[in-house]
Amino acid sequence: MSEQPDETPSAKGLSRRALLLTAAAGGFAVGGLAGGGIAASAAAAGHADGATGDVVDLSTAHPFYGTGAQAGITTPVQRYSVFMTFDYTGVGAADLQVLLARWSAAIAQLMQGKTVGEVEPERVDAIGKDTGEALDLEPAALTVTVGLGPGLFTDRTGLADRKPPLLRDLQLGDTTIKPELNGGDLSVQACADDPQVAYHAVRALARMGKDSGSAATRWTVMGFGRAAAGKGQSTPRNLMGYKDGTRNIFEADDLDAFVWTSDGPEWTRGGTYQVVRKIQMHIENWDTDRVSDQNNVFGRHKVTGAPLTGTQEFDEPDFAQQDASGSPVIPATAHIRLAAHETNGGVKILRRGFNYTDGINQFGFLDGGLLFLSYQNDPAHFEQLQSRLSRSDALNEYITHIGSGIFFVPPAPREGSYIAAGLFA
Amino acid sequence: MSEQPDETPSAKGLSRRALLLTAAAGGFAVGGLAGGGIAASAAAAGHADGATGDVVDLSTAHPFYGTGAQAGITTPVQRYSVFMTFDYTGVGAADLQVLLARWSAAIAQLMQGKTVGEVEPERVDAIGKDTGEALDLEPAALTVTVGLGPGLFTDRTGLADRKPPLLRDLQLGDTTIKPELNGGDLSVQACADDPQVAYHAVRALARMGKDSGSAATRWTVMGFGRAAAGKGQSTPRNLMGYKDGTRNIFEADDLDAFVWTSDGPEWTRGGTYQVVRKIQMHIENWDTDRVSDQNNVFGRHKVTGAPLTGTQEFDEPDFAQQDASGSPVIPATAHIRLAAHETNGGVKILRRGFNYTDGINQFGFLDGGLLFLSYQNDPAHFEQLQSRLSRSDALNEYITHIGSGIFFVPPAPREGSYIAAGLFA
Ligand code: HEM
Ligand code: HEM
Repeated sequence: MSEQPDETPSAKGLSRRALLLTAAAGGFAVGGLAGGGIAASAAAAGHADGATGDVVDLSTAHPFYGTGAQAGITTPVQRYSVFMTFDYTGVGAADLQVLLARWSAAIAQLMQGKTVGEVEPERVDAIGKDTGEALDLEPAALTVTVGLGPGLFTDRTGLADRKPPLLRDLQLGDTTIKPELNGGDLSVQACADDPQVAYHAVRALARMGKDSGSAATRWTVMGFGRAAAGKGQSTPRNLMGYKDGTRNIFEADDLDAFVWTSDGPEWTRGGTYQVVRKIQMHIENWDTDRVSDQNNVFGRHKVTGAPLTGTQEFDEPDFAQQDASGSPVIPATAHIRLAAHETNGGVKILRRGFNYTDGINQFGFLDGGLLFLSYQNDPAHFEQLQSRLSRSDALNEYITHIGSGIFFVPPAPREGSYIAAGLFA
Repeated sequence: MSEQPDETPSAKGLSRRALLLTAAAGGFAVGGLAGGGIAASAAAAGHADGATGDVVDLSTAHPFYGTGAQAGITTPVQRYSVFMTFDYTGVGAADLQVLLARWSAAIAQLMQGKTVGEVEPERVDAIGKDTGEALDLEPAALTVTVGLGPGLFTDRTGLADRKPPLLRDLQLGDTTIKPELNGGDLSVQACADDPQVAYHAVRALARMGKDSGSAATRWTVMGFGRAAAGKGQSTPRNLMGYKDGTRNIFEADDLDAFVWTSDGPEWTRGGTYQVVRKIQMHIENWDTDRVSDQNNVFGRHKVTGAPLTGTQEFDEPDFAQQDASGSPVIPATAHIRLAAHETNGGVKILRRGFNYTDGINQFGFLDGGLLFLSYQNDPAHFEQLQSRLSRSDALNEYITHIGSGIFFVPPAPREGSYIAAGLFA
């Protein structure tokens, strides 16, 4: 219950968080689980502090190798994201092993702002190893996070008995997920402060997957805009205009309790389960709703982000408070009431979302939404929250879940090794 | 023929250009046609100089009102763009006039980083005027440029006889343009260094169009990544990995000769014609081509951007030079030979493109391309180049034009007035 111990005014929000993350990193270091450059990244990211938040420093580089989690999970959220899933098209486990080794070597290069090989080879009649479009660009805080889907651990790879203990298809009885936006055997989440850098990274990995015959693209979402900056304000807003990320996991203890796995086979420890949902917002309907209704949908005020029971963004919501007529001030169907750890037996997940837009749909309506990504050490935690939201959330009138996937994200490889190396040992 | 008078090394490219644009702005000031903040913008934009190019300053604001062209044409290219076209659904000329007046007032606010009205009204049971998602964000160098399509100047508006003299549908015999990506009565080009800012602006205008019953969304493209930064390198690269924008219009004389209109009805003078093309690239085919072929397609080297007859990006291409066997070094079908002013009777256009990606197509291929935007004082100039390219360009094997539009962009309104006010006088 100590998630928000200090009532820091909202303007200081991200600084506080950066601090907490730095502290968290320190905590892991002591605990022997130092994540891939969390401390460094929180300190180095140009937009991590509201005071200097109007400048984005594109020279920031995060390390890929490490002794903790992969980068891109607790790394301060970058401004853009390309998320892509792949079908595994290789043979047995050997092709997968080679693919993960090649991807790892490439990611290590890319995160330093380098190419994955020559753009214009000496032998000019050769094909370029790197497609070149990020050649002059800085690392831009790029992180590339690789996940393994349930479909990898079957008879066709011979890895059925090596499945990360809790990895399985989500059990939600979803009816709105489009088949073409569902699942995948591998996931790549590339985040950067420059979309061209993020896109180049995913393109490079997709190309290696295709050329080797080991991985074929399945579905993708490009996200943006989740790192607010300037005006001393810091929690980013979603396309409904609400601050999104006010209550999240910020502390080392919670990361250990709810995000990183601590048991299971050795190669999985310190990893985490990634859930992705492409959630369409009915933006134009939303825009015709009164703000009082909108506030009730979330249980928060639109401008300040304060809970309806408070006045400042980081005020603790009081779910017990009632108005004169005896109704709860934060309604029974409010998104935050249904999702909060206080009403879910203490369960927390780490959310890391991005906005997306798909332009205009066939009816001429603006088409956009949320690329929802969450990390947890048990997929059942996500299922618990999502089942509850899908039953009662007032937000449901305005959203449709159209894409879905679940992946196990192994810890970062040590220098000289590659992602999930232990899986093949 | 003095387009590239000094052989400045490539690393200095954009600085030189920024200088030229500043000079251009000065030129206009003297000539009485000072564009909307060209000088200010070139100086203020954080990425206008290679030396400090690794930092993006989101506090940059451009003025909307002015005595020259609308902002967003010669403004240093921002990192993101949302381009949208609309059908005019109003009655007569009156609704159009009101729409342009309301859009103008809104754009003036947005370009200063402000909302278009209250996000959370005092009367909390009211609908928010602004959707709120850019509330905490800086202006991010936002420019919003409005264009008028040929369909506005017909009997239904009573404005048939007030049509800008050269405005008409493009005459190209295009066969690959998708109907749903064609035309429009109004265009909005929003560019900013933050996609959420650009998207919010277009969304605000779309909402005003719909609520007033005057404009319905038609088609849209989100572009990105065309402002390179850092490493002393500056010309942005397209998704084929080539520097794009090396030879373009940079000088005041050329802007006057080829971009701004100088005759026609008074309200049109100092305006320009905007051509937009959504050009799909067959990225994965391209990626399997040898770099020597790719170089021949463009007539330039991939890494340096130098013409095949030179060694540095800004070397003047020598279209006459032949190799030992008597073949032209820059092939007859090379993109730059066919598009260059030297081979087109001196014709130049101002290009202002962005990369886009549409994710993965139905065949599982990466789907992306170029949001091509050009500005010229005669649409026939674009048609001349495009007809020639469509006949012979080696690039055609790798691209398909799928979207198209043409619009007249009136000059910037003076403070207290609105876009195209003179049209209704
Ligand atoms: C388009 C869909 C969604 C939107 C627009 C949305 C938006 C929000 C907003 C505005 C908040 C309040 C600010 C904050 O504390 O971050 C919030 C909180 C939260 N959301 Fe969502 N959300 C969406 C989907 C989901 C989903 C699918 C889940 C998980 C299944 C989820 C879990 C949470 C949690 C755990 C909180 C924190 C609640 C608290 O502790 O107070 N959200 N969300
Ligand atoms: C996907 C489509 C296209 C791509 C990838 C592309 C790419 C390029 C590249 C790499 C250059 C050389 C660098 C430079 O000087 O900027 C260039 C030059 C140029 N392009 Fe394109 N272009 C495309 C379409 C077009 C179209 C449709 C037009 C006009 C109809 C056009 C007109 C020009 C012109 C005028 C030049 C400068 C030529 C010179 O003076 O040397 N391009 N383009």
